[in-house]
Amino acid sequence: MRAFGQHHRTIALGQDGQSVVVVDQTRLPHAFEKRTLRTSAEIAVAIRTMVVRGAPLIGVTAAFGMWLALRQDASDAALREAAHALGETRPTAVNLAWALARIVAEMSPLRPGERAAAAMALAVAMADEDAAACEAIGRHGADLLHRRFDEVGRPATFHVLTHCNAGWLATVDWGTALSPLYRLHDEGLALHVWVDETRPRNQGLLTQWELAQHGVPCTLIVDNAGGLLMQRGRVHACIVGADRIAANGDVCNKVGTYLKALAAHEHGVPFYAAVPSTSIDWTLSDGVKGTPIEQRSAAEVGELPAGTAVSNYAFDVTPAKFMTGLITERGVCEASREGLRRLFP
Amino acid sequence: MRAFGQHHRTIALGQDGQSVVVVDQTRLPHAFEKRTLRTSAEIAVAIRTMVVRGAPLIGVTAAFGMWLALRQDASDAALREAAHALGETRPTAVNLAWALARIVAEMSPLRPGERAAAAMALAVAMADEDAAACEAIGRHGADLLHRRFDEVGRPATFHVLTHCNAGWLATVDWGTALSPLYRLHDEGLALHVWVDETRPRNQGLLTQWELAQHGVPCTLIVDNAGGLLMQRGRVHACIVGADRIAANGDVCNKVGTYLKALAAHEHGVPFYAAVPSTSIDWTLSDGVKGTPIEQRSAAEVGELPAGTAVSNYAFDVTPAKFMTGLITERGVCEASREGLRRLFP
Repeated sequence: MRAFGQHHRTIALGQDGQSVVVVDQTRLPHAFEKRTLRTSAEIAVAIRTMVVRGAPLIGVTAAFGMWLALRQDASDAALREAAHALGETRPTAVNLAWALARIVAEMSPLRPGERAAAAMALAVAMADEDAAACEAIGRHGADLLHRRFDEVGRPATFHVLTHCNAGWLATVDWGTALSPLYRLHDEGLALHVWVDETRPRNQGLLTQWELAQHGVPCTLIVDNAGGLLMQRGRVHACIVGADRIAANGDVCNKVGTYLKALAAHEHGVPFYAAVPSTSIDWTLSDGVKGTPIEQRSAAEVGELPAGTAVSNYAFDVTPAKFMTGLITERGVCEASREGLRRLFP
Repeated sequence: MRAFGQHHRTIALGQDGQSVVVVDQTRLPHAFEKRTLRTSAEIAVAIRTMVVRGAPLIGVTAAFGMWLALRQDASDAALREAAHALGETRPTAVNLAWALARIVAEMSPLRPGERAAAAMALAVAMADEDAAACEAIGRHGADLLHRRFDEVGRPATFHVLTHCNAGWLATVDWGTALSPLYRLHDEGLALHVWVDETRPRNQGLLTQWELAQHGVPCTLIVDNAGGLLMQRGRVHACIVGADRIAANGDVCNKVGTYLKALAAHEHGVPFYAAVPSTSIDWTLSDGVKGTPIEQRSAAEVGELPAGTAVSNYAFDVTPAKFMTGLITERGVCEASREGLRRLFP
């Protein structure tokens, strides 16, 4: 997507063919800088410290990390060890486990000497697939939101609320939740986006930055404000990404998503999660009961007086009954076992 | 209440008998400092810039401001002008209008020469009344929470969630929402308080500070976390203060309160507002429709990149149907016109 008038992806092969170049998201929105990563260990640090973040992007980044590991040592043992080390970096996003399992499955049958080149090709293909999936999500989501726009009587401004960052920065390109919004804006619909700050890491600032770079009108609000805005009829739809969708349609996403879904439900505002199918965990039958919730460092909450006790859960789970639907690269479905199965037989 | 082992009130007459001494809440939790205010104009600035904040304390502070104004000029015109200027400082807390109206009503019949001394005595009395009301709220609220503690099977730790700061710092002494919690703790109940950070001004840090000073176990959480905690059964009750209760029981409080009330309702967690009756606006028949919501400066949200659009609503209104009850100095009532009228015939 566009930043400073040029097209960028969040991750790409380095021009030397031996490295990976990523947008450093810890520097945004204050500076737009790229970083070159040359080893699997550097990739692992980049994921853990959120230089790269967002479930789809984490998966693709880990795939590139596997390639860099195999460049150094392509043995079976090294393959397993690299997958294990990269898998430990973040516990909640299912895309990470999916990407690692795919690389391991496709590399294992190959002779060690073939693995590095094949892993590079696969990582590049997975990046392209992610971008294509996100573009498709944009088309399906835009159709859906166009219908909502008509349903609410074609208002002078169509207000959509989002939480966290599920834009192109969270993926390779386009984004998940923001992909339909870019498309609506490009089609000329008078869109305005309410952007949740998303404490404690303030990923809303990333969303605000990328929307503004693309020219989409948007307003930053604190996470506390969404209930008031919905009560006053100032939100026509909500759309978020997800780190993991359970097989029953429960949606794990950045902490605070659930509170917004409750408010949307109370006020008849449709609430969607937009995800590539790589974020669906078919092995998890009950998202509320089974999703591992990452607890991150108290330091993320800020500089606090010494001795302040802090608890910092990074995600929550919204039960499927509060989701109006799921937007995937194959189309839109009900957030339920049946809905998901119809789309992914 | 206790800070650094000594008893303090948030506001008191200066020892010279010509000034008002307040705790500077903009310096907390990093420093505990008092400030001396000598004119009504200084009082107005202190309220507007939130050197003092919290609905009950704002009312009492304005009463002292009227005294300082009348010391300079006790004419009818000056009385009106001072009430007008102080009334403009913050729009949402009804205690402010109540306190000013009371001073004007009681001073108007007096000769100008008698007014300053009478206003001082009245302001001091209003401070004492506020402390007494908060102490009574503590008794009624503690009884209620004791019953809840029994109802949930006397857990090893009784978890209460609060939003913003409705402690002694928001009142003259004791606090509203925190008053019952201090009492429960002092009675030996194994209490733990989840403290919402309360963006954008982070008044949760005040709550965390004052609870810790008193020795009450507490944990700071981001505003996004409450839904997850309630879903996981880790909150036994919620209690907040309020800036204005409408005659129909709707509760206006710090923005984000409504989202927590929705989550509490979904999970069967009782949700209470604790207020002195001075926070009840009998003239406001419908809180959701009629409460003026203060919009504060975008700068409160933080240092953002130039050009970032920000909206900063400071309050929201929780409809009465989501409130389990209201705790006042006269006892506990249902959040409804009938409930309030039974307690305040």
